[in-house]
Order: sequence, then structure tokens, then C-alpha cells
Amino acid sequence: MINDAAQQVETGHEAASPDADGTAAAVERLFEQYHFPAGPRRILLAAATAFADRGFHATTTRDIAAQAGLSPAALYVYFRSKEEVLHQIATSTLDLTMELVSAEAGRPGPPADRLAGLVRVLTSWNTYNSQVAHVVLYQLGALSPDHLAEITAKQRAVFRIVRQVMMDGMAAGDFDVPDAGAAAVAVLSLCLDVARWYRPGYRLTPQQLGDFNAVAALRIAGARSPDPS
Amino acid sequence: MINDAAQQVETGHEAASPDADGTAAAVERLFEQYHFPAGPRRILLAAATAFADRGFHATTTRDIAAQAGLSPAALYVYFRSKEEVLHQIATSTLDLTMELVSAEAGRPGPPADRLAGLVRVLTSWNTYNSQVAHVVLYQLGALSPDHLAEITAKQRAVFRIVRQVMMDGMAAGDFDVPDAGAAAVAVLSLCLDVARWYRPGYRLTPQQLGDFNAVAALRIAGARSPDPS
Repeated sequence: MINDAAQQVETGHEAASPDADGTAAAVERLFEQYHFPAGPRRILLAAATAFADRGFHATTTRDIAAQAGLSPAALYVYFRSKEEVLHQIATSTLDLTMELVSAEAGRPGPPADRLAGLVRVLTSWNTYNSQVAHVVLYQLGALSPDHLAEITAKQRAVFRIVRQVMMDGMAAGDFDVPDAGAAAVAVLSLCLDVARWYRPGYRLTPQQLGDFNAVAALRIAGARSPDPS
Repeated sequence: MINDAAQQVETGHEAASPDADGTAAAVERLFEQYHFPAGPRRILLAAATAFADRGFHATTTRDIAAQAGLSPAALYVYFRSKEEVLHQIATSTLDLTMELVSAEAGRPGPPADRLAGLVRVLTSWNTYNSQVAHVVLYQLGALSPDHLAEITAKQRAVFRIVRQVMMDGMAAGDFDVPDAGAAAVAVLSLCLDVARWYRPGYRLTPQQLGDFNAVAALRIAGARSPDPS
């Protein structure tokens, strides 16, 4: 119950429209089926759920194995330790995040379209996978120093992709922002903070939230045409 | 070490300028000296540190008492349980947040100035008090259902204040935003997400971050004059 920890700030929850967007579903499938390796997938999903619910330190390898429907020893076929489970969750998640963000940032077209695209996919991803995102965003302190450094490097790579799109827009005269780095951080805050507060049934669908955040990001960037379709 | 869990996305950390802003220091003092009641203050500060570091479930009342330099029994002079400690941290924090945000939102002057003011103070608060903020933002799942409902109501009150400023600006023709609620959520994301990634020594001071976020919030709101001083 990751959303116990969420901040549900909006009132007046109308029923959400049905999720008719195939892209988000595909992102979700991609994550579960491809980025978590097939062998330990059940363990990683069970661990992400347990970490999100009770925190890394309060979760035992026995808890994870039980949640995955496996014997306590099964976890050690794939992982040396609970820390390695967390590291694998973070690695898989950030590799996929980099892949999605790079794909959007690398599309042909003006920087505004590329910024909007990456904000949509990141927002949607963090909404649909809020449990995994919660662990990767808020519980990395439990990693070993080496693993933390490795994961931090991946996070920096994601940041640099967003900042580069911001700088491309400035170089093209399409964006007007005083500090590309600070703008990239602000845009990432919009996309990532959904993992903290979003709950299924919120009056906007993940796609609508992605669209709103895309417009907000273009405004932060001072894009010439603030509300492109 | 709350910042173990932070996502330090920016590279090129220059030394931060000295903190010359008395407002932020005053906010910090206000929080520690007034909003944490004097009697149990050491316990609450020790608990916030321990929860931020290891998580609520992995922290014992004995850990908290030891961290506070008190005997294990001392905690029970003020609190019935560890959950009550968390509840008091969240209550104090949100009462102060409401007080700060209400004061900025209620100032005379145009909605743009009021929005900028509350974004500055919220950003600065969450930067300076990132340990407490981390607990209140990401660990509320450990509260009892009654306490969680009470804290969620306070969070909604903060949200409604921000949304009202957004609606005031729209009514005055100063803001242009398609969805006041979504815009308020986005603005809050900017102000709160700093608790996740900010570290002392970041190249922008908390005041500079507050100023950047204020401009970003006005842009999200579609304020007529996007970069007022």
C-alpha cells in the first residue's frame, strides 16, 4: 500500500476516465516483462512492494520470499543480499528511465516537442509504477556506497538528457529560461513527484496528468508557443 | 543522513554562497523552538532523524531515546507509542506549513505576489528542514487510520490555499491556466520535491532555489508578467 504514504492533496475525486492509452500500458509491460529479468522477476516485484510498504530496513529476505510465494532459500539463487535486490530494482528502473527519456529526447523535431514528449512519458511511467518509483526515489540510502554512486551516476545521466533538451531550446531561440540546470530540476520534480501523491481514481488520468505536466514544463522553459497540441 | 536517500541530479557542485538570508534561519528557529513543543523537542528531533535515516518501522522507541540522550522510559513520559511520535512530527510540521502558507497567501497585493511569496517560503522551508519534510512527505503510511485522515485533511487545507490563490489570479485576469487544481499540484511538486534531492552545498542556495521556483510557478500559472522582481 504505497499510497498510504502518498499525499492526496486534491479534493473532489471524480471517477477517472477509463485508461484508453496504449502507450502507458506498453510502458508498464515493458518494465515488468523486459527490464526486470525473467528469473528473479517475482522476487523483484515482491521486494518493491514490501520496501514501498514497510521500508527497506524493516523488510527481511524471508518476507520478500514469502510475498513472492517462494522458499526463503530461493532468493539466494539470484541475489547475495537484500541490498542486491534493492540495487537491481534501482538499476532496472533507471536503465528503463534512461531508455524512455533518451528515445523522446532524440526524436527529430523542435526541442519543445521533445521536452513535451519526455515529460509525458516520465509522468506516465511514475504514475503507473508508483510503487517501484517510490522505492527508487526515496529509499536509495540503504544502498552500499559503491552501488549508490553507480545509481547516482545513472540519475545524473537522466538529468543531463533533460538539461540538454533545455539547452537545445535555448540555443534555437525557442526557450527563454535563466538557468537550464534549475529548469531541468524543476521539470523533473513535476514528473517524479507524482509517485508521492498519485492514487488510482484521481480525477485526471495518468495521460491527462502527463499532458498537463508537458504544458507546465514548456511554460517553465519559457517556450515561445506555450501550449502546443 | 537523510540525503543518502536524495537524488542529487545536478552536476558541477560549486560551493554554495553563505546563507545570508535571515528569513530562512527564522523559519528554522520557529520550527524547532515553537512548533516542536519544548518538553518533547529532543525526542521529536531525534525521531525525525532516525525515521529519515532508517525508516519508521526499523526504528525502535529505544533507538529514539538513545539518540535523544534519554533513558528508554523518558519517551513514554510524553508519548504513548512510536506512532504518536510520528503523528506529532506530522502535526507540528503541517500546522507550521499552514501558518506560513496562509500568511503569504493572505498578504495584501496581487495574486502573483502572493503565489511567489508562498512558493519562496515553502521551497526554503523544505530545503532547510529536509529531514523532517522527508518523514512527513514519504512515511505517513505508518500512521493509524484516524491520524492519517487528520493529517491528510491538513495537507488538503494547504492544497486548497494554493489553489485559491491560483483561482484568485484567474478571476482577476492575471493568470491563465486550464485547471487551477492541477496547477496547484504542480506548484506544490516544485516546492516539496526539494526535500528529496537537495543537499547542502548545492550550487544554488535555498533562497535562490525559492526565487527560481517562484518564477517557475508564475509561469505555470500563466501569469501576465512572468518574471516580476
